[in-house]
Amino acid sequence: MSLSFTIAAPSLGLRPELQRKINQKTKPIGSLGRLEGIALQIGLIQQTLSPTLLNPHIVVFAADHGIAESGVSQYPQEVTHQMVKNFLQGGAAINIFCKQSNIELIVVDTGVKKEFDEQQENFLQLKIALGTNNFLDKPAMSEKECWKCIEQGSKIVENISKKGTNIIGFGEMGIGNTSSASLILHHLTGIKLAECVGSGTGLNERGIDKKLTLLKQADRKYPKNMKPFEVLATFGGFEIAHMVGAMLEAAQQGMVILVDGFIATAAAMMAHAFYPQSKEYMIFSHQSGEYGHAHMLEHLRVMPLLLLGMRLGEGTGCAIAYPLLESAIAFLNSMASFETANVSESLK
Amino acid sequence: MSLSFTIAAPSLGLRPELQRKINQKTKPIGSLGRLEGIALQIGLIQQTLSPTLLNPHIVVFAADHGIAESGVSQYPQEVTHQMVKNFLQGGAAINIFCKQSNIELIVVDTGVKKEFDEQQENFLQLKIALGTNNFLDKPAMSEKECWKCIEQGSKIVENISKKGTNIIGFGEMGIGNTSSASLILHHLTGIKLAECVGSGTGLNERGIDKKLTLLKQADRKYPKNMKPFEVLATFGGFEIAHMVGAMLEAAQQGMVILVDGFIATAAAMMAHAFYPQSKEYMIFSHQSGEYGHAHMLEHLRVMPLLLLGMRLGEGTGCAIAYPLLESAIAFLNSMASFETANVSESLK
Repeated sequence: MSLSFTIAAPSLGLRPELQRKINQKTKPIGSLGRLEGIALQIGLIQQTLSPTLLNPHIVVFAADHGIAESGVSQYPQEVTHQMVKNFLQGGAAINIFCKQSNIELIVVDTGVKKEFDEQQENFLQLKIALGTNNFLDKPAMSEKECWKCIEQGSKIVENISKKGTNIIGFGEMGIGNTSSASLILHHLTGIKLAECVGSGTGLNERGIDKKLTLLKQADRKYPKNMKPFEVLATFGGFEIAHMVGAMLEAAQQGMVILVDGFIATAAAMMAHAFYPQSKEYMIFSHQSGEYGHAHMLEHLRVMPLLLLGMRLGEGTGCAIAYPLLESAIAFLNSMASFETANVSESLK
Repeated sequence: MSLSFTIAAPSLGLRPELQRKINQKTKPIGSLGRLEGIALQIGLIQQTLSPTLLNPHIVVFAADHGIAESGVSQYPQEVTHQMVKNFLQGGAAINIFCKQSNIELIVVDTGVKKEFDEQQENFLQLKIALGTNNFLDKPAMSEKECWKCIEQGSKIVENISKKGTNIIGFGEMGIGNTSSASLILHHLTGIKLAECVGSGTGLNERGIDKKLTLLKQADRKYPKNMKPFEVLATFGGFEIAHMVGAMLEAAQQGMVILVDGFIATAAAMMAHAFYPQSKEYMIFSHQSGEYGHAHMLEHLRVMPLLLLGMRLGEGTGCAIAYPLLESAIAFLNSMASFETANVSESLK
């Protein structure tokens, strides 16, 4: 099998005209800072001088991780299942922030260790298995399972796209998944594993040491120069692999992609490794408080919008950053120009 | 005359209970980063475990500056008048961002050089004079004028407070006013003037050099150790002095104060110099791209919420940051707790 997405970077032909429109707004040139870059990026993605944000969605992928059994997290593994139930009941942070900004939330069970009785429209039950394997023993998933994740992730976004959505963010829930993301970071960049491992949900120094020891041990079991796809299958998890497929499909559909924190950026790095142009569709919502996220952003040569020390996942960074995108679109579409407002331009 | 505000720092008695409520939300402790600190601060200001943001307002104070005649800005002085008309017609950035977040916008003419024909409910015409004096020749305003500014600014906020508003931001428009703010920064902190002067609306290096030369020349005319009030009257402007009164009144009323960029923070420093406790009511919305703003924030020992390279003024930073305050309040009020959601807590 091989990936068969068609992803081209947005044409830059419209760039001068977009920049002119931005510069003609009644404000000093460049004075809206990053909002101007965001307006430009979204204009290029949508190939229009008057971009829109339609029917915004955040999809949260949940899964359990074999490595969690070895004690890499501050929380028991059941929390993945419990938090998905919390998402379905509307009580988690991501529910609150999505509601605040009228973002539709979809929750996907990609492999939580326990079954769900809940049936609701915004809940997709697409379990690959009851959690991944513990990569201390064997690869987190088979190649076939990994393909299936990418395919399912892609299909979900294809369906959302049919509803007219042109902006999408992705979140995750999975006790143990910072371990997966750390190993992905390590393998895709060569950065020392110790530099890729952090406190996750809140480990103290001793906890981080134990996590690092376990991840080093796992890492030694596998070849050094695996291809990105092998890295993904080896260290998982199901939610990350789904996110890779979802991001690639979103880029293929020409959607604006909001990237969340450490785990989501691991998926973004993977998508970028497969299709470098996919990065042009991504907006990096925030820099997580999780150690290692800064390395990811640097590796991708991207600047996050927010730096608030958040490290919750669930797509919360995407939801929190979304109003900034609305601001960027709004100033581009609705501000007066120097000419229409009869305001004098800069002296030279 | 002397200032007669009554401003006490919020009592900290509620702090442990507020912190407990935050920590009981279904998320790892501290994982919402700065949003948690904002929730705590607003809870303390309002002395409640369930804070609200009611009837948010942004007041934009406009005035002209005598120093503008000497060529310290990239834009002609008429732009102050033109931009106020733009505010009244709804075409400026601050109009767009206020509309986005349902923030009511009030525009105040505190001393624009030209009269306005416009009469509208959200426009207050409270001219002190047709612009300040050029402080290269004499103090920007008399002590009496400076008192009147503070009084008028205070009165405006008192009236807004009567409408049930408990959150307010302040913006400004005034060609030349980064020069005033730079001199205020220099005098209140002792930081070298060269470190306080930046490009304003977009001066190039030569323009900045000229501005610095003029400001040094002005600075030499006046005593070194002026009191804050004298600094304010000497270097103006009317909009800044109004903002000082407005901020002090907002603190006295126990409102949450959103502070914008370089000019607004000069006013905040002045308010802080008069009543140090006023700082407890302030949230610093962003760090401006204007050189020198970082010094102000450091002097006040505060962390801005956003760092987006914005340097437009008008209160745009306040408006852009406002959704983050909504998020902070929303998570505190609406997220489920570990207990209610039946989610396991951290292992230790």
